[in-house]
Amino acid sequence: MNRVYNFSAGPSQMPLEVLKRAQEEIFDYAGTGTSIMEMSHRSPAFMNVLKETKDTLRRIMEIPDDYEILFLQGGATTQFSMIPMNFADRKDTVAYIDSGRFASLSCKEAKRWCNAITVASSKDDGYSHIPEVKPSDIPSDAKYLHITGNNTVYGTTYNRPIEHGNIPLIADWSSAILGKWIDVKDYDMIYAGAQKNMGPAGVCVVIIKKSLVKDNIDDVVPTMYSYAKQIESDSMYNTPPCWSIYMCGLMAKWVEDQGGIRAMEEINRKKASMLYDYIDNSRIYRNNVNRSDRSITNVTFVMESEEMTADFLKLCKENGLINLKGHKAAGGLRASIYNGMPVEGVEKLIEVMKEFERNV
Amino acid sequence: MNRVYNFSAGPSQMPLEVLKRAQEEIFDYAGTGTSIMEMSHRSPAFMNVLKETKDTLRRIMEIPDDYEILFLQGGATTQFSMIPMNFADRKDTVAYIDSGRFASLSCKEAKRWCNAITVASSKDDGYSHIPEVKPSDIPSDAKYLHITGNNTVYGTTYNRPIEHGNIPLIADWSSAILGKWIDVKDYDMIYAGAQKNMGPAGVCVVIIKKSLVKDNIDDVVPTMYSYAKQIESDSMYNTPPCWSIYMCGLMAKWVEDQGGIRAMEEINRKKASMLYDYIDNSRIYRNNVNRSDRSITNVTFVMESEEMTADFLKLCKENGLINLKGHKAAGGLRASIYNGMPVEGVEKLIEVMKEFERNV
Repeated sequence: MNRVYNFSAGPSQMPLEVLKRAQEEIFDYAGTGTSIMEMSHRSPAFMNVLKETKDTLRRIMEIPDDYEILFLQGGATTQFSMIPMNFADRKDTVAYIDSGRFASLSCKEAKRWCNAITVASSKDDGYSHIPEVKPSDIPSDAKYLHITGNNTVYGTTYNRPIEHGNIPLIADWSSAILGKWIDVKDYDMIYAGAQKNMGPAGVCVVIIKKSLVKDNIDDVVPTMYSYAKQIESDSMYNTPPCWSIYMCGLMAKWVEDQGGIRAMEEINRKKASMLYDYIDNSRIYRNNVNRSDRSITNVTFVMESEEMTADFLKLCKENGLINLKGHKAAGGLRASIYNGMPVEGVEKLIEVMKEFERNV
Repeated sequence: MNRVYNFSAGPSQMPLEVLKRAQEEIFDYAGTGTSIMEMSHRSPAFMNVLKETKDTLRRIMEIPDDYEILFLQGGATTQFSMIPMNFADRKDTVAYIDSGRFASLSCKEAKRWCNAITVASSKDDGYSHIPEVKPSDIPSDAKYLHITGNNTVYGTTYNRPIEHGNIPLIADWSSAILGKWIDVKDYDMIYAGAQKNMGPAGVCVVIIKKSLVKDNIDDVVPTMYSYAKQIESDSMYNTPPCWSIYMCGLMAKWVEDQGGIRAMEEINRKKASMLYDYIDNSRIYRNNVNRSDRSITNVTFVMESEEMTADFLKLCKENGLINLKGHKAAGGLRASIYNGMPVEGVEKLIEVMKEFERNV
């Protein structure tokens, strides 16, 4: 086995223990004589996997009882449509903070359905900071305020509370969930594509306050897009993505075994600090993000030329460090250092960065 | 390893060779040093998995070049909405044949969007046959005719051509795809949730004639629901369900290694004949389906009382034969004998049926 350190922004590196468990159980889950992949989703064994995954998430995220947990298909991008279709009528106003690529896409998608407006944006400075928003910036009749908690492409995150007055707050926390403490009570809904910090692609976790859910949605909205229907059927309106849910459960349990989310955050802060400290003191690497808005899960940096960047990426690859190229919208470099990335991976990256710097 | 014979209607039993390959590669796919689950979906390795899966399906199903192959999330149920939303305007008429539970659900979902009508139904006789339809039954302005090729719940299937005149034909072949020969050229679109006969849950394969695809769909339709967008981005408008696609590729390759779909069909016909022959000659088991419409992938049967059925299911379980209970909408019993079910599994089932019959 020749494993590499994989700095991909998602799908991303998983703990070896989690993959090992999946490998061991692949033919025969818990003595059932079948794989999770072969199991009827209505079987007691799979119903138990679903329940345990929910229970574990509820424990480690301290999700209050008045929130439901759903496992849906179609990634965070599907939520971009489901959210306005469930919470707004066609003429209603909904508010978005534009802090990066996916924030911008979520607003664009909402515009297909209703009057979606951007109440704050950091687009003009290349999304290098989290825009400020005051409650007075949000129309009082807005059905919700939507934020993207962690901006994977630009390496920024909300490190401070969001002032949203009485407007329901909805957040896409795809690239930081389980990696830093997020107080569920501060939100009306949180959603996250699993493939960054909590599992493989194919499932999106939705944590939603029951009081936000409407029974009656517009006739043209697909039944699959109704939160009420999905809650009623416990994420099983149709066959759910069983394997991805199972992997999500293993990941959540692994986080619990490490001491929980606050313990993970401590490790993630350590990894991020090591990287940022080195970058801030280097001659050739530069992080362009507002310091107080820096992400601890996606560390972006640039070098002075594309040639130098390409040479650096080559050296990384030779050293078993992969997927460090930045998103094409942002350029430069990016190290995604989610829960699955051990401290040793970051140490190795810094070592290679140093080696490259010495020889420039 | 204590494997059972799993007669679940889906998710369902997979060939041991396929699971073994997945197990071997789980830490390190093709020397990349990462799992398929950890791999960026834009990486050359995963792009190659996607391409190979498409190529294999194209070879074994003989999919002509003017058809696209998509891997989408949300199961066949999501297609129930996507189809009308892509091919009909709100005032348009679309036609459905009601041959069972999912056929009925697909029409119900289309009604949310447009004027969906049922042109033939076998509901009145408990869905025990495939309804006849003549081209003159289909409104000439219908945007398409939709059929459910194999009815998982009732154990019926189309064993004869569908007369649909000039109206585009769309078919849900979820529970028979790769298990019997389906001539793609006879259809404008075929779709199939993978979890019955071609992989784990979490991916739906869509095979669609390019000329059917419209670039401009109604503004309120989510971008994720646009076939044009999904084709443009090669199923990667957002992160696809990588693991499920990979498993689908392994399953398709396995079918090819067995000699292709026609070879699979031969085995499946043999398994089904063994079961039907035994049932037809037994005192206590009865199949209620029109003989010419019998499915070779889902064999339904009833016994004279619920007590007897429960006793029989108990004996099956004791013998490692699971998930033989019929769907709650149909009652009775059902043996789903997809590609992944070896002949030995059906032989064992018949042996247990005989034993039970001897002792009644």
